[in-house]
Amino acid sequence: MTKPLRIGIAGLGTVGVGVVQIVRKQAALLRARTGRDIQITAVSARDAGKDRGVNIATYDWEDDPVTLARRDDVDVFVELMGGPDGPAKAATEAALDAGKDVVTANKAMLAMHGQALAERAEAQGRVIRYEAAVAGGIPVIKALTEGLAANEITRVMGVMNGTCNYILTRMENAGLPYETVFQEARDLGFLEADPTLDVGGIDAAHKLALLSSIAFGTRPDFDGIEIEGIERIAIEDIRAAADMGYRIKLLGVARRTGRGLEQRTQPCLVPASSPLGQLEGGTNMVVIEGDAVEQIVLRGPGAGMGPTASAVMADVCDLARGVRITTFGQPANTLADAPAAVAGVPAPYYLRMGLIDKPGTLAKIAAILGEHGISIDRMRQYGHSTEAAPVLIVTHKTTSSALSAALAAMAQTDVMHSAPVALRIESV
Amino acid sequence: MTKPLRIGIAGLGTVGVGVVQIVRKQAALLRARTGRDIQITAVSARDAGKDRGVNIATYDWEDDPVTLARRDDVDVFVELMGGPDGPAKAATEAALDAGKDVVTANKAMLAMHGQALAERAEAQGRVIRYEAAVAGGIPVIKALTEGLAANEITRVMGVMNGTCNYILTRMENAGLPYETVFQEARDLGFLEADPTLDVGGIDAAHKLALLSSIAFGTRPDFDGIEIEGIERIAIEDIRAAADMGYRIKLLGVARRTGRGLEQRTQPCLVPASSPLGQLEGGTNMVVIEGDAVEQIVLRGPGAGMGPTASAVMADVCDLARGVRITTFGQPANTLADAPAAVAGVPAPYYLRMGLIDKPGTLAKIAAILGEHGISIDRMRQYGHSTEAAPVLIVTHKTTSSALSAALAAMAQTDVMHSAPVALRIESV
Repeated sequence: MTKPLRIGIAGLGTVGVGVVQIVRKQAALLRARTGRDIQITAVSARDAGKDRGVNIATYDWEDDPVTLARRDDVDVFVELMGGPDGPAKAATEAALDAGKDVVTANKAMLAMHGQALAERAEAQGRVIRYEAAVAGGIPVIKALTEGLAANEITRVMGVMNGTCNYILTRMENAGLPYETVFQEARDLGFLEADPTLDVGGIDAAHKLALLSSIAFGTRPDFDGIEIEGIERIAIEDIRAAADMGYRIKLLGVARRTGRGLEQRTQPCLVPASSPLGQLEGGTNMVVIEGDAVEQIVLRGPGAGMGPTASAVMADVCDLARGVRITTFGQPANTLADAPAAVAGVPAPYYLRMGLIDKPGTLAKIAAILGEHGISIDRMRQYGHSTEAAPVLIVTHKTTSSALSAALAAMAQTDVMHSAPVALRIESV
Repeated sequence: MTKPLRIGIAGLGTVGVGVVQIVRKQAALLRARTGRDIQITAVSARDAGKDRGVNIATYDWEDDPVTLARRDDVDVFVELMGGPDGPAKAATEAALDAGKDVVTANKAMLAMHGQALAERAEAQGRVIRYEAAVAGGIPVIKALTEGLAANEITRVMGVMNGTCNYILTRMENAGLPYETVFQEARDLGFLEADPTLDVGGIDAAHKLALLSSIAFGTRPDFDGIEIEGIERIAIEDIRAAADMGYRIKLLGVARRTGRGLEQRTQPCLVPASSPLGQLEGGTNMVVIEGDAVEQIVLRGPGAGMGPTASAVMADVCDLARGVRITTFGQPANTLADAPAAVAGVPAPYYLRMGLIDKPGTLAKIAAILGEHGISIDRMRQYGHSTEAAPVLIVTHKTTSSALSAALAAMAQTDVMHSAPVALRIESV
């Protein structure tokens, strides 16, 4: 039997406690599978005295995570504090400099500083693993980095923020407006302290930046991601999309195109019958497409104590077994600069508008679309009792710039009752 | 740069050619990701002169795969010949004895001889990897062995034979009987030379034996699997199941129960709205449940040149990167004997029967079920123009032994027009 793998855990929130529980409960299983004992030597968190429901008295306590990270009896530093900067980053750097491997669930830190941290790790011959940072319990980092390593990845996309998916499916199932469901989610504790991270699409974009880097061999480029949240999604759009055979999902999409790398996190329409369209509640789903494998779909819990701790411990098991993969799947100093984000990749769009109900109105709208080279795939006008006639249009593929120009031209007419809603339709 | 990883490929059918294509087309990508060149040094197949659409003239040719497996310039022996015994097994043993790692897509060989081969590999400090053996392009062996290594697995199940799923979905969508669609599938080249491997559930059982071993730390136990194929599924059952909200799938299921290990491959009913129920055509899906991760679902192409070669090359990339996992996730000599298969785990069942249309018939059937402790969840009798009244029953949970006894008792009555069909309903 090889000597034990000794871990130090910084951060004893839900995930940290879950990790402690697995190490305690599954000691024999972990030993059988990795050939080593996995031991927690020391822990660190904000409050030493707090009752967490697990006995941590047998581990050394450190007030300062940086001190924990540098301890001689820690082989792997497990960072579960969160936040892009501050103690999490300082302790991660300290661990790497002290020659420790790092396991983290911190998507924000890696999305913002992943390149520098990966270079720092590799200068020391160390690795940073972060299965728990993307899509909770789904082993997607492993699938992409290792399982599909022989593929030229063409697209990676998915529903990677369970809170947004909960809100959107709850709006549809209960017929409730966004504001009501947002408040429900807040009351249920589903939202981050700063809810913009969730509903503003930022959390999903952090995750996308990591997947995109692995998929395309580029430096993580969070700033290059076009980000839009779900705040402006109305129950009317959810209903109208359903009527046309679609569901609205907050998708992160990264795609290799002939014109560069497309990276966006935004609400999109997907076919209601597709795996993404059928995804309900807080579950996550990642779709990976490669030249050889065609399409793989991974589905599972995106958050929660057990699933996230499962992912953290998968990384720990890898290190115990001697599996050491570089942070982004190839040496950090060989990653290319992400090419400038491309916004103009053509796609079909969904348009919902309220038109003034008088003769010639629809003709004006159709003419404007035609003038901008946008052809109509499907159109529906609904009966109405108000002065605005609800009209839905699904276009053929067009660019977002052509669409913006057309919407601007529509605003100049006297037939729009309110500004139209435009949402991209993602092919799946 | 580390020295190249040199592979020898035995078997140049569809998958072998796909592997050659990836090695040629993606040389730069594989080098970037693994840090090494991956080189094919020698190949072996039945016919040296056959045109395979790829240039193999630059590789040494060996008529005998055993000779190939022993070559000094081969680090990894890639076995793509297939078959549980014969040349595939002989060459695999020769490779291991000569100190080579083995990558194979051969589910039959591993299901029958995996224990002995794994012990042989480990005696030499070598590994056998077989991502391509289960569920084609889906990285399920990796997900289970590594990604979920910290979980006590409670159930692993899935649709792992695309041909059967194609036949069942085609029957439903086209309303065609089994025999017609079977012949179509044969004409399309979807069936193995011995179609019993597919439609008899044997291929799916080979795969289940491997997943079960990894999941539960037991020796592969193909002989312990209860196997039933799809040959007796009638279009009437597909229609009746749909009417009750189910689809019929050939499922492989391995489950840890309080009474032992349950392993079966059989047609089951699953809810039509579940991911398994929605799976169409030749696509595969594996569902893995663990104590921490809850439930993970993996979906992707179960066969085909690109997807299968992607999986083979993932194993090759692992070895190039120095990732070396033991065959069944823990040392072979620590695997437990699989506990005797348990047939009696309670489950709900679907029953379809034709009853003689006369007073008191249904009461007799209901009484027999009641006498055997089987309670009825739902029952439907359909209008009919023939003398047999079609009746569907969904039972509450019961054991297969209680059900068999009840069916035997029904056969003794004078009210059965034909033998009833009974299918298990798997909860998902």
